[in-house]
Amino acid sequence: MAELVRTRRELSRLLGAAPRDQGVGLVPTMGALHAGHLALVAAARAQQEVVVCSIFVNPLQFDDPDDLARYPVDLDGDVAKAAGAGATICFAPSVDELYPGGCPPQVSVDPGPLGDVLEGAARPGHLRGVATVVAKLFALVAPTRAYFGEKDYQQLVVVRRMALDLSLPVEVVGCPTVREPDGLALSSRNVRLSPAERRAAPVLYRALQAGAAAAEAGERRRCELEAAMAAVVGAEPLARLEYAAARLEADLEEVDTLEGRVRLLVAARVGSTRLIDNLGVAC
Amino acid sequence: MAELVRTRRELSRLLGAAPRDQGVGLVPTMGALHAGHLALVAAARAQQEVVVCSIFVNPLQFDDPDDLARYPVDLDGDVAKAAGAGATICFAPSVDELYPGGCPPQVSVDPGPLGDVLEGAARPGHLRGVATVVAKLFALVAPTRAYFGEKDYQQLVVVRRMALDLSLPVEVVGCPTVREPDGLALSSRNVRLSPAERRAAPVLYRALQAGAAAAEAGERRRCELEAAMAAVVGAEPLARLEYAAARLEADLEEVDTLEGRVRLLVAARVGSTRLIDNLGVAC
Repeated sequence: MAELVRTRRELSRLLGAAPRDQGVGLVPTMGALHAGHLALVAAARAQQEVVVCSIFVNPLQFDDPDDLARYPVDLDGDVAKAAGAGATICFAPSVDELYPGGCPPQVSVDPGPLGDVLEGAARPGHLRGVATVVAKLFALVAPTRAYFGEKDYQQLVVVRRMALDLSLPVEVVGCPTVREPDGLALSSRNVRLSPAERRAAPVLYRALQAGAAAAEAGERRRCELEAAMAAVVGAEPLARLEYAAARLEADLEEVDTLEGRVRLLVAARVGSTRLIDNLGVAC
Repeated sequence: MAELVRTRRELSRLLGAAPRDQGVGLVPTMGALHAGHLALVAAARAQQEVVVCSIFVNPLQFDDPDDLARYPVDLDGDVAKAAGAGATICFAPSVDELYPGGCPPQVSVDPGPLGDVLEGAARPGHLRGVATVVAKLFALVAPTRAYFGEKDYQQLVVVRRMALDLSLPVEVVGCPTVREPDGLALSSRNVRLSPAERRAAPVLYRALQAGAAAAEAGERRRCELEAAMAAVVGAEPLARLEYAAARLEADLEEVDTLEGRVRLLVAARVGSTRLIDNLGVAC
């Protein structure tokens, strides 16, 4: 059974008493755990005896107050699920506990140019909020490794870059996106989809597959790859495309002719629910 | 004798082997050590057996390339001085070693509103550079306590706020400014003063004393306290005032009528050398 702790002090006490020879794994989450999160917890447990699953709906990374207010919360269910997957500590602080100096904090982690493109352009301040809360969790947990899903690919790139640029002594591990049988990437926001929207939602994955097929057929032009993905989303009446992008995988750099590892990324509203997805391909 | 290490790997190895029961003290410096720095090292050594003195001229906190180029460097002398004062490890990385992802880094620590006033207004980017490098040193050394001189008072406030807002598990200790017999605050830049400028330089401290005398006489109006200080600097032909400010001590808030702990701060050019000083008073 995972121990549920609500304060920094209690977390520190538990970690101080824990066996450290294998290090500590951290899986930062906003709760509403699904099989994607649980795969991260299991990956962490495979490498460390001590696995902290943090459960914190971070106000700082919500640009949309309505999205924050409607974010699903089920702490008891989440603790049981995390424990079942191998978490030994669930850290679920209040906003006041995690932001003792007030939220938003005065000092924050600036993600730099990566914070202004794609998700950063669509959700101003989002990646700054992510970077800041992850930096705080890294400081409180001092993990050996931290696990992030590739589903939020840009977040993974920002966190990796933060660890490099701020010399944080943690290994950032990216784990594959977990999908429904029809290809829809698992997301805590999927529960908001109506039955008709749910049937339409795999269009994001189909768009990525169309982009991947074009790349495999030899297409290297960014605009063509993006057009191929956009066309698929455009054909779905319930979906409204926000972006379809092809970028270098390592740093999301935008180049006209792609070579090497490439990430295809799409964001779209399905009904009123905003969904994102991505896929890695070789060009 | 202090051990001199030039790489993160060697630092990590030394710290891993060091006795940790008293924790680790950190004194971040840019070298050119004077008695002010050595007082910080001695304060650290009084509380911890392991004291890291970092010596790194951080390009990120220089807004003026000429100031960076002319910053005095004497690594061998600095290591000997730091060891004499009680440092056990001197960490003197190269720029490439401390910024493996390149300098400037993409991800940085944003000091928020505190980074835009006083020194932040006079030296754009300076406090972001300070906050970022200090966050990196905190991550690499994992100190129990870190020691900063009150001489750079705004820097101390920013670092304290950073530790609070980013949940960094370190106690930030402020130590009193060390002065020459005539009141001039010790600074690595004092060596740049000509003999005549050196004789004029204590005008900053005299200005602070004039402000303090006004406060002790009951003056609470910010403008009057600032005018009293400005008048003293204005009477010195070799000095050119940049600012004379009275602020709340805890957070440097600017209020019209001061009450409680107040910080008086002045910045001025003496000849071409920029000097700063400050003094705490009760209002």
